Amino acid sequence: MELLEKRIARDGIVKEGNVLKVDSFLNHQMDIELFDEMGKEFRRLFADRPINKILTIEASGIGIACVAARHFHVPVVFAKKAQSINLDGEVYSSKVESFTHKRVYDVIVSKKYLGPEDHILILDDFLANGCAVNGLIEIIEGAKATVEGIGIAVEKGWQTGGKSLRERGYRLESLAIVEDMDPQTGRITFRR
Amino acid sequence: MELLEKRIARDGIVKEGNVLKVDSFLNHQMDIELFDEMGKEFRRLFADRPINKILTIEASGIGIACVAARHFHVPVVFAKKAQSINLDGEVYSSKVESFTHKRVYDVIVSKKYLGPEDHILILDDFLANGCAVNGLIEIIEGAKATVEGIGIAVEKGWQTGGKSLRERGYRLESLAIVEDMDPQTGRITFRR
Repeated sequence: MELLEKRIARDGIVKEGNVLKVDSFLNHQMDIELFDEMGKEFRRLFADRPINKILTIEASGIGIACVAARHFHVPVVFAKKAQSINLDGEVYSSKVESFTHKRVYDVIVSKKYLGPEDHILILDDFLANGCAVNGLIEIIEGAKATVEGIGIAVEKGWQTGGKSLRERGYRLESLAIVEDMDPQTGRITFRR
Repeated sequence: MELLEKRIARDGIVKEGNVLKVDSFLNHQMDIELFDEMGKEFRRLFADRPINKILTIEASGIGIACVAARHFHVPVVFAKKAQSINLDGEVYSSKVESFTHKRVYDVIVSKKYLGPEDHILILDDFLANGCAVNGLIEIIEGAKATVEGIGIAVEKGWQTGGKSLRERGYRLESLAIVEDMDPQTGRITFRR
């Protein structure tokens, strides 16, 4: 998606340690007009799929998922990190390792909001090693629901998450795939 | 806001310990069409204020803030709980005690995304004792930005947060104020 690639090229900051900071528009400060265009694009890409619910994971996936959901006319469910006393009853759960926070989270979704009748689009802001998406897939499989597709804002193309998901047959659409980035020059190269 | 009150009356669940569960439409599964109506209402209520940014707190405020922001044509910044290695540079911070999770969080916003030129609308899903909103106000004051208003989806009217904020002169608009609720009958009474 050219609009997103241009924005990453202009405002993304490349840091040592394979870190791409896009917190000025994507995951700390959020440009809602950009999100709206991304939502339209996700709708176009998954127009052939019978999606009735969007699943994301807190925190930075929520904004993209909610703005995109307007274009699908479906509700959003977000998976929560760690147990909350307000989530009673049974939950589907999986373990997710965060690249950013260097720790493992329990991720849960109430059984009330996912079931065999659901056709799910997974949306998230970043795809690197795929831990978060794999955790969401595990939750969806636990609910005997169907993964209709996976939509990602920014994929780090040199990490294994995207390749592995595509090889397993999932319909994965990343709006921007970063192929390479150089912390010295700040240059970001996208997959064509 | 009648639409939200009706939804709370229909789908909210009252539990012992002053817990109102609205996770079927507000803070776990999220009804985006409802959020869009709430966003329109916030826009109407704060139409006279020169808002250039919306501030919320992760996680459950993010969806409401992002959908509402479309009606204000402004970006959203969400305050993050606990330090992330990806948030470099200096941050504004405050401490927030979570009623739901029974713990104290450090809440941070990068100094890059708040400053003296900003006129902020705070949005959040719940207002009870006001800890989260007070934390956000402290962050905004630290940035020498201006609090233009506070918009809340559901206020628990018998808790002190709303009263205290109004007494301090903040423009606080809650779309639904629950005056009383009965865990035996499930009955929810709203402030008129």
